[in-house]
Amino acid sequence: MSAGMRLYDLAGADERVRFSPYCWHTRLALAHKALSAETVAWRFTEKEAIAFSGQGKVPVLLDGEHCIHDSWQIAEYLEATYPDRPSLFGSTSEHALVRFVERWTTETLHPAIGRVIAPDLLAMLHEKDRAYFQTTREAAFGTTFAAMILARDEALATLRRVLQPLRSTLAAQPFLAGSAPNYADHVAFGAFQWARVSSPVTLLAADDTSLQAWCERMLDAYGGIARAARRAV
Amino acid sequence: MSAGMRLYDLAGADERVRFSPYCWHTRLALAHKALSAETVAWRFTEKEAIAFSGQGKVPVLLDGEHCIHDSWQIAEYLEATYPDRPSLFGSTSEHALVRFVERWTTETLHPAIGRVIAPDLLAMLHEKDRAYFQTTREAAFGTTFAAMILARDEALATLRRVLQPLRSTLAAQPFLAGSAPNYADHVAFGAFQWARVSSPVTLLAADDTSLQAWCERMLDAYGGIARAARRAV
Repeated sequence: MSAGMRLYDLAGADERVRFSPYCWHTRLALAHKALSAETVAWRFTEKEAIAFSGQGKVPVLLDGEHCIHDSWQIAEYLEATYPDRPSLFGSTSEHALVRFVERWTTETLHPAIGRVIAPDLLAMLHEKDRAYFQTTREAAFGTTFAAMILARDEALATLRRVLQPLRSTLAAQPFLAGSAPNYADHVAFGAFQWARVSSPVTLLAADDTSLQAWCERMLDAYGGIARAARRAV
Repeated sequence: MSAGMRLYDLAGADERVRFSPYCWHTRLALAHKALSAETVAWRFTEKEAIAFSGQGKVPVLLDGEHCIHDSWQIAEYLEATYPDRPSLFGSTSEHALVRFVERWTTETLHPAIGRVIAPDLLAMLHEKDRAYFQTTREAAFGTTFAAMILARDEALATLRRVLQPLRSTLAAQPFLAGSAPNYADHVAFGAFQWARVSSPVTLLAADDTSLQAWCERMLDAYGGIARAARRAV
């Protein structure tokens, strides 16, 4: 079924800039399983282009007659459909634990990074996406972009505190999943790749060695697809 | 080797009140492996009583000629020493993921709960432990007990936000480890048991159903040892 797989992937004003952390989950999961997909640049406001999926967000994966949206659902689909490829989750109970990493990343880490990089995201978006992005993000953060710019140092300090469990885990082992990455690493690293592609801000202090080293390993993984990604800045 | 296992276990003024979250990690891990240990009530300031372990904190587990301290080290010891008993960690990569849950619990969840319950902990400690506890905790939190009492509502609101990844994970599955608990559940639930034993504060809102239900399952697990625990209040 993998022939002709297609992934709708969030893009900036420069369509080569692919910054969505959720789309990176899927791109790394595909790479982990040695599957390839043609990516289709998509902008936030192009709702009609993915209306066939029954909703309005990416990633959306088309695989033959199958259409799957939501990065977690896509990972579960890939795992079920391509069981002979390297596993994204390992055992059933490991799969359950990866869920916690995914929830922590989405619900704790993403908001903390978002408060730091949101102004840079606004700047690199296609013009037609900017009003949508500003309105939805100011509502989600309960503040204005102007206020976020002024509070960036504080947001960066908060982020570095939020990262502590990831930092100390990765001081004890090369990857969240141990000696090699799995979907837990794809998800958590996707947050760093989001920032790397879209913002000039240095998220990690120079002496944050365990997180720095893990990011380097993830940038190198799967033939270096994350490192090769086009950056907006 | 399990005959005669002994666990030094933190106690309150009433020595039947055992409140340390780290000691609960070990007690649940022992129960998971169907191993029993005689517990020895220990207070914070009784450093000489565990000096044989080369450090000054509990849990300390004595198993035959082996002396192990630090709840994570004890779990790894039990897993290695009693491999035929039910596994605490499952696969190697699952073990690595449990590490993240343990780090998140210790570094994010414990401070958030501690800010809510620290005044109650002070009240239930043995008189001889109180000055030690107040000094070390006020330093760790960077505030006074008086200020913590006054900021309790805010601390509770913060805690409930911090719990979001645990909440949404447990909305999707019965335990962190999936259909049955493992050491990830022991660790995360140990934080709730800490509060349950030592504080009258209701940590969870009445409509926080996924966390409430998981706590009930953990209270019932292993013959209900957590539910049967003596409470200070």
